[in-house]
Amino acid sequence: MKICVAGLGIIGGSVCLALKRAGYRVAGWNRSKQPLDYALKNGVIDEAAQSFTDYDVVYVALPPKATVEFINNNAFKDGAIVSDICGVKEPIEKAVYKQKRNFRYVGCHPMAGKEVSGVQNASATLFDGANIILTRCDKTDAAAFEEMCTLAEDMGFKYLIECSAGTHDEKIAYTSQLAHVVSNAYVKDGEIESCIGFTGGSFQDMTRIAGVDENVWASLYLENANNLSEKIGSLISSLTEIKQALDEGNAEKLTAVLKDGRQRFESGKNFQPRPDIFVRKLK
Amino acid sequence: MKICVAGLGIIGGSVCLALKRAGYRVAGWNRSKQPLDYALKNGVIDEAAQSFTDYDVVYVALPPKATVEFINNNAFKDGAIVSDICGVKEPIEKAVYKQKRNFRYVGCHPMAGKEVSGVQNASATLFDGANIILTRCDKTDAAAFEEMCTLAEDMGFKYLIECSAGTHDEKIAYTSQLAHVVSNAYVKDGEIESCIGFTGGSFQDMTRIAGVDENVWASLYLENANNLSEKIGSLISSLTEIKQALDEGNAEKLTAVLKDGRQRFESGKNFQPRPDIFVRKLK
Repeated sequence: MKICVAGLGIIGGSVCLALKRAGYRVAGWNRSKQPLDYALKNGVIDEAAQSFTDYDVVYVALPPKATVEFINNNAFKDGAIVSDICGVKEPIEKAVYKQKRNFRYVGCHPMAGKEVSGVQNASATLFDGANIILTRCDKTDAAAFEEMCTLAEDMGFKYLIECSAGTHDEKIAYTSQLAHVVSNAYVKDGEIESCIGFTGGSFQDMTRIAGVDENVWASLYLENANNLSEKIGSLISSLTEIKQALDEGNAEKLTAVLKDGRQRFESGKNFQPRPDIFVRKLK
Repeated sequence: MKICVAGLGIIGGSVCLALKRAGYRVAGWNRSKQPLDYALKNGVIDEAAQSFTDYDVVYVALPPKATVEFINNNAFKDGAIVSDICGVKEPIEKAVYKQKRNFRYVGCHPMAGKEVSGVQNASATLFDGANIILTRCDKTDAAAFEEMCTLAEDMGFKYLIECSAGTHDEKIAYTSQLAHVVSNAYVKDGEIESCIGFTGGSFQDMTRIAGVDENVWASLYLENANNLSEKIGSLISSLTEIKQALDEGNAEKLTAVLKDGRQRFESGKNFQPRPDIFVRKLK
């Protein structure tokens, strides 16, 4: 099986390293030259990809717009699997199926990352024990989907979630994008300038991802704007409810509001898969 | 030096264990019997305290109201150091200095904790490498303050922050209380019921402290209501700003708003101590 990864950032680079660790030979491609040179020199990839028609599997690890352009502007082998690993899935899926394709598309989202970027931060172990989401629709080729599951298992993922692109985008607005929005908003307070020494683990956790690349994330947010806007609105409501109880000095009300949060959190730990979401334990 | 810890929860218990690790003999007291029995049986304390007048140093590790009651309703040795380790400092300091005291008061706040509670979760290493804040005012005894610094160093703290009780409460509203409020508000979203599998590190970080005891935290929030309310308001404004740029579909504006957050976060890493905040590196 000949595999190529297009886009050598931290995620694309980690896909290469995790696949190489599992024994695959991996070719790489990048829009700019420097990360490609780094990847070649440091054994992140085995070779630079010349023509994408050479590969059985092509992972596209580029931002959403660049992913669609890459898929539209390149030729792939008949029956190859082309998989994007964008943080939003519905806009990509829609763009892919806008025309007849000679390849088989599977949407993919590894639920792992770091607060740093670039191929130099890629790691063969980034996905160990993490979740991966694969999206499918009625046009998805069943055999291609299964091959992607096997590759995910080989990369070290622990749980595989299978759902529609729309479900993915709805969930991810809450579990990932909202967290990034909160972290960014949290550090805008003037206190950020003089609070070191007053910080503990909760502050570190809250702000860990405040420094992520605004260009990457703004484009992801805008591709999922309706879902994310609703989640931000819901969080603002919950914060306002707490603030009101606090402003009223109403201990009973404040305690009840906080208790409701704790209880929802605890009940949320008991996973109730919806009928349209499938979970597989890998390995 | 005879030391007593009143209040054997996770923090009080960890103070005992960290002091015992450093070679001190530590007595303990608790409002209810079970944690005291546990602490005696498991070597968290050396003995149960009989009379508080026996001790040179008494750490009070109780919630704010209970701390004030404890200090008002008990007798202490002449010149003893009495230190509370509440998460708010100004209300305690005010209550202490409302009357003439035969002991020397120093306010203390260890910046370490866990999302679990109870003496059974106490640990001798909880404070290793953490920050501790000691508060002082013009009534603070200098020698007592220095003794508290030595004890903090012996417990494993890395940095000691010295400031007024008011400064503490202002900073802590942002670095600790707001983080707990956000975590609680975050999990109120209906998505919490069916998002497992879609979560990665950022979600874990955002929600880690969502399950803390609402009674403990409601009382801390209410004792610091003005500061905390302002911080929640400031966060709501920042979230609203991001939501508006998103709702407008304005990529340039959204990127600029997020860039501002990232840059503030990065500049915040360069600690600029205010003239009224002193930082000591311990050991």
